[in-house]
Amino acid sequence: MSKIRATIWGENVHEQKVAFIREIYPKGMHGCIADGLNEDAAIEATTVTLQEPEHGLTVEKLAATDVLVWWGHAAHGEVQDAIVDRVIKRVNEGMGLIVLHSGHYAKVFKRLLGTTCSLTWREAGEKERLWVCNPGHPIAAGLGTYFEIEQEEMYGEPFGIPTPDEQIFISWFEGGEVFRSGATWKRGNGKIFYFRPGHESYPTYYDANVKLVLKNAVRWAKPEGTWIDTCPNIPVDKAPEKIEIKGATLHAPGEEGLK
Amino acid sequence: MSKIRATIWGENVHEQKVAFIREIYPKGMHGCIADGLNEDAAIEATTVTLQEPEHGLTVEKLAATDVLVWWGHAAHGEVQDAIVDRVIKRVNEGMGLIVLHSGHYAKVFKRLLGTTCSLTWREAGEKERLWVCNPGHPIAAGLGTYFEIEQEEMYGEPFGIPTPDEQIFISWFEGGEVFRSGATWKRGNGKIFYFRPGHESYPTYYDANVKLVLKNAVRWAKPEGTWIDTCPNIPVDKAPEKIEIKGATLHAPGEEGLK
Amino acid sequence: MSKIRATIWGENVHEQKVAFIREIYPKGMHGCIADGLNEDAAIEATTVTLQEPEHGLTVEKLAATDVLVWWGHAAHGEVQDAIVDRVIKRVNEGMGLIVLHSGHYAKVFKRLLGTTCSLTWREAGEKERLWVCNPGHPIAAGLGTYFEIEQEEMYGEPFGIPTPDEQIFISWFEGGEVFRSGATWKRGNGKIFYFRPGHESYPTYYDANVKLVLKNAVRWAKPEGTWIDTCPNIPVDKAPEKIEIKGATLHAPGEEGLK
Amino acid sequence: MSKIRATIWGENVHEQKVAFIREIYPKGMHGCIADGLNEDAAIEATTVTLQEPEHGLTVEKLAATDVLVWWGHAAHGEVQDAIVDRVIKRVNEGMGLIVLHSGHYAKVFKRLLGTTCSLTWREAGEKERLWVCNPGHPIAAGLGTYFEIEQEEMYGEPFGIPTPDEQIFISWFEGGEVFRSGATWKRGNGKIFYFRPGHESYPTYYDANVKLVLKNAVRWAKPEGTWIDTCPNIPVDKAPEKIEIKGATLHAPGEEGLK
Repeated sequence: MSKIRATIWGENVHEQKVAFIREIYPKGMHGCIADGLNEDAAIEATTVTLQEPEHGLTVEKLAATDVLVWWGHAAHGEVQDAIVDRVIKRVNEGMGLIVLHSGHYAKVFKRLLGTTCSLTWREAGEKERLWVCNPGHPIAAGLGTYFEIEQEEMYGEPFGIPTPDEQIFISWFEGGEVFRSGATWKRGNGKIFYFRPGHESYPTYYDANVKLVLKNAVRWAKPEGTWIDTCPNIPVDKAPEKIEIKGATLHAPGEEGLK
Repeated sequence: MSKIRATIWGENVHEQKVAFIREIYPKGMHGCIADGLNEDAAIEATTVTLQEPEHGLTVEKLAATDVLVWWGHAAHGEVQDAIVDRVIKRVNEGMGLIVLHSGHYAKVFKRLLGTTCSLTWREAGEKERLWVCNPGHPIAAGLGTYFEIEQEEMYGEPFGIPTPDEQIFISWFEGGEVFRSGATWKRGNGKIFYFRPGHESYPTYYDANVKLVLKNAVRWAKPEGTWIDTCPNIPVDKAPEKIEIKGATLHAPGEEGLK
Repeated sequence: MSKIRATIWGENVHEQKVAFIREIYPKGMHGCIADGLNEDAAIEATTVTLQEPEHGLTVEKLAATDVLVWWGHAAHGEVQDAIVDRVIKRVNEGMGLIVLHSGHYAKVFKRLLGTTCSLTWREAGEKERLWVCNPGHPIAAGLGTYFEIEQEEMYGEPFGIPTPDEQIFISWFEGGEVFRSGATWKRGNGKIFYFRPGHESYPTYYDANVKLVLKNAVRWAKPEGTWIDTCPNIPVDKAPEKIEIKGATLHAPGEEGLK
Repeated sequence: MSKIRATIWGENVHEQKVAFIREIYPKGMHGCIADGLNEDAAIEATTVTLQEPEHGLTVEKLAATDVLVWWGHAAHGEVQDAIVDRVIKRVNEGMGLIVLHSGHYAKVFKRLLGTTCSLTWREAGEKERLWVCNPGHPIAAGLGTYFEIEQEEMYGEPFGIPTPDEQIFISWFEGGEVFRSGATWKRGNGKIFYFRPGHESYPTYYDANVKLVLKNAVRWAKPEGTWIDTCPNIPVDKAPEKIEIKGATLHAPGEEGLK
């Protein structure tokens, strides 16, 4: 069986600009995430970054990606709209998408969900406890009833998302808030998973439970089927039932339609 | 009780360019739709068009709109992205949105749903029969088990939408196709209804059942509550539970965060 | 405008058997809940109990109920299946249903949701903080971003429910757990709201925020439309399109069908 | 890789009582369905019937079933409630369930969905055309844009179901109706697929497209994870955060709780 091809998209800004973050993630956050995924023999993870031509997300790279993992924070606005469109097209065709932490404000995420994706936040290094909402869900496989991260940024409700298809994790924070930390949606044939942890000030992506969730999520999000849709005109003589044209028509026969 | 303020957005292109369409809709399609809604004493419908400054959708007009009704076909690409963003923001706050027929490809609809919104189509003036999927739904109030439109464009499955919150109508076409002709979603606090009929070559918006559906839909889509969200930082001393900052921080105290 | 007729169904067991609970709720929990609802001039709340004939839920009483509020704990098994069927039928027709606290294990709730409705629990009088997931939802109208109950039983995830249509509240507990404390579903035309707080050992239903939530919920859950469905045979001569019978048939003409 | 264990539950009544149906299905409908599934090397299909002890659905048989396929019509009322409870428990744990045709009124289906599951119907041997709503869904793999069954019973909307998670097929009928012929839900960890075709008067389960859908559906519905839930008490000294009991308690320490 061929491996699941995961592409980690890293914004790669704070790792370059902020010394203490570079020390935590010397290979970049994307490098650390890819290393974690590559521990799983069923996954082949590679990385691309914002700074590459086309942000590394060429047509060829996306065509060769089963699951795209997205981490961004400081430079959401620098992601070109044409690349956002390309990613959304591939998700609709069937590519999986895992959006991490501050990626709640990534253009690709907001465009796929259609909502504000807002939340409340606090950076105080407080404890986060993630509860499993369905121990039988493949993304939670191998976890206990909950796991903890000693230091994390807080994200709190209200989280401006459409109702998830499934709620996988809810977080309890030391400072008193809660958050829907793991949730899934489907857009076209693309399976989408949002996972909250991963503030760049903390070594979250080295955590064994976090790595396990990401491996599970990549396996879960791999394409189950693909549909590249168009908007075909069905000519009268191709209708399943025999009909004839009645009345005036706006479109000429064989016209492609307005898009 | 104050009236529900419905704003009909009309693309107003084919009514200007194509003589036989102008004859069907001398006041524009938007004018006909507004007239139908204004038959309902609970609704106050006004119209705006693509050609007006800001496409008629100024901040003030949208703030004074409870439900926006959208008809577009030939000029989806001419709608400015800034106006699309503004409409989406208002939908998320709580404004209702009714998208008609070829509006399946409107930027506002595709952006809110996050999918391709594709379908198959044929313009042959064939009969459409719309079946009611839930006779108890307010949008179907007063209809029988089905209603027919003698001449319509065909739209067929697959329709590239995320699973609707509720399925209201499914169409049977003379030529052999079916289509999910009435469906609802929610984005933020905005209720969204897509309604299939309304090809400009036919006098669909004069039909009594179609007018009834639109009145019902405006009543259903009116705001039930509003939320203008931001992404507030919750300072450590405002946390519900007493905590202290641990570890290094990326953000300075009181910083607004990255968006 | 006529009032919304809310019927509070009280199990009324612990109030009778346990002295300290009777002291908290001398009129029964159902009595206290009804008093809270009757503060709202738009609502007319009455009570029935398990001990009455047909548990107080006669055909007539249910027909005159817009929203049924259910509190049970010690005697779920004593509720007769015929009455459960009757309640479920009315919910499907359009009656609203609000299920409180330990009612997560009520037959009516488990039968409508189709899942185990399990959870984890602890009775330690700990603090519960309920966060609002959508400040624009009518059930959360008038609340702040959160509210607290000083002493409550803990319910924790995993909560064995199908994905809610909307998530209204999530609780943070002093002991470290979280719970989906307010959620909605629809079955047929009946709107269902589950609300977690209300353990009988504590005076929760006197709390102003809890009372506000229940008033909001009754207003939200009132019927928007009714559908009393049957499973009608459509004879060949009543088909919308002209057809003739082909092949052998199992059913005789006019037969009612197998149920 | 071990095979997917599919158990076909056959009511086996009309095949015994009605000569022309016995001629169509000499091995019983369940036998024909199992033969079709066994064409797929990844599936191992066996059969059980209503007439066996415990309707063939012993604890052991269900524990050894990955996906249960259900065909019933004339004898829904004869299925014992204890067996229904057992099936529902297994579905919630993670067993897949495929409900066929007249099984829309099976106790297991109605109990899992919580709605009336009503529809309209006509037995006239008319043509059914099933449209694929998402060509990328695994249940539709290998089909064209639609397929036809020359003679089938008609089922029409309204279909009294909660909103499906995904709509897979919608049928067009010769007599003018439409129906949501293929739809999915999840209850607990069990994936549920309803598939409309299969009236006993016609040789539907010999049809190549129908057989393909059933093979696809069994592959899709196989368990992805299992959760056998209980409703555990979490004692105070096992709370993640240190707390002490405050106030009076109804439950004694270590008590199991009320169910």
